[in-house]
Amino acid sequence: MSGPAKRDALPGTDAVPDADVASDAGPGLLRGDWLDAVRWDGAGLVPAIAQEEGSGRILMVAWMNREALHETALTGRAVYFSRSRGRLWRKGEESGHVQRVRELRLDCDGDVVQLTVAQEGGIACHTGRASCFFRRLDDGRWTVVDPVLRDPEAIYR
Amino acid sequence: MSGPAKRDALPGTDAVPDADVASDAGPGLLRGDWLDAVRWDGAGLVPAIAQEEGSGRILMVAWMNREALHETALTGRAVYFSRSRGRLWRKGEESGHVQRVRELRLDCDGDVVQLTVAQEGGIACHTGRASCFFRRLDDGRWTVVDPVLRDPEAIYR
Repeated sequence: MSGPAKRDALPGTDAVPDADVASDAGPGLLRGDWLDAVRWDGAGLVPAIAQEEGSGRILMVAWMNREALHETALTGRAVYFSRSRGRLWRKGEESGHVQRVRELRLDCDGDVVQLTVAQEGGIACHTGRASCFFRRLDDGRWTVVDPVLRDPEAIYR
Repeated sequence: MSGPAKRDALPGTDAVPDADVASDAGPGLLRGDWLDAVRWDGAGLVPAIAQEEGSGRILMVAWMNREALHETALTGRAVYFSRSRGRLWRKGEESGHVQRVRELRLDCDGDVVQLTVAQEGGIACHTGRASCFFRRLDDGRWTVVDPVLRDPEAIYR
């Protein structure tokens, strides 16, 4: 996450300590050294933003642990960590709304992951909407501005 | 943040308890009832994603407390809460890289805020890059893929 300018880290470096770590393609992904560049929180988690390829729409934000991020990178399918269930959550495992990962990014502080995904079914939200961000602040009230594309009852049979 | 499908909240409702709360335009924003719909964490904070208007680029993620979000909505300028400094951080206060807020959204669980912003100076990151998400995972390594647009030393004089 960003804070105000961190002068201590500047200048000279661009605050990217792990950017130059060399590793080979397949083996590097497998070995998972790159996972050490992520600043996991006290619970071993990092927030991950899923953004839709093409539209650029922000679909959802969820959590990943090390295993979830590793599997996501290895399989190309978004895997999160469900805090409520205390286990890996392979997005789409119940709904079929799998996210195919096109790109993974990490922010300057290493504490937020960004996924560019192709959203199968065009629905990321458990309410049956394309995106979880379907409420907009209008004149001092949160207003639902995006339609339900599919009845959740039909999704989670 | 999203978890796996929350069947408990379905069907019948779309898990948007506060979406129908009516309030007037100016007074509603001022009064801040809408702030109660946000699920502040234990520290009274919520993560906020700034997305660039037009490009759809995700610029940064930072934290907001109630006061920061309220001021953001009232002034149309992004205000965050700096955890390291323990105070409000009016984005651009040092760098000049102010964010003009076009839209505010809240996710289905009410625990992530999304801002659509016009980024003054075209730089959101303290490293002098457009976005904080300038590292991409390529073949098992985080690779810097976005250029420094302006030397941070010139930004933070």
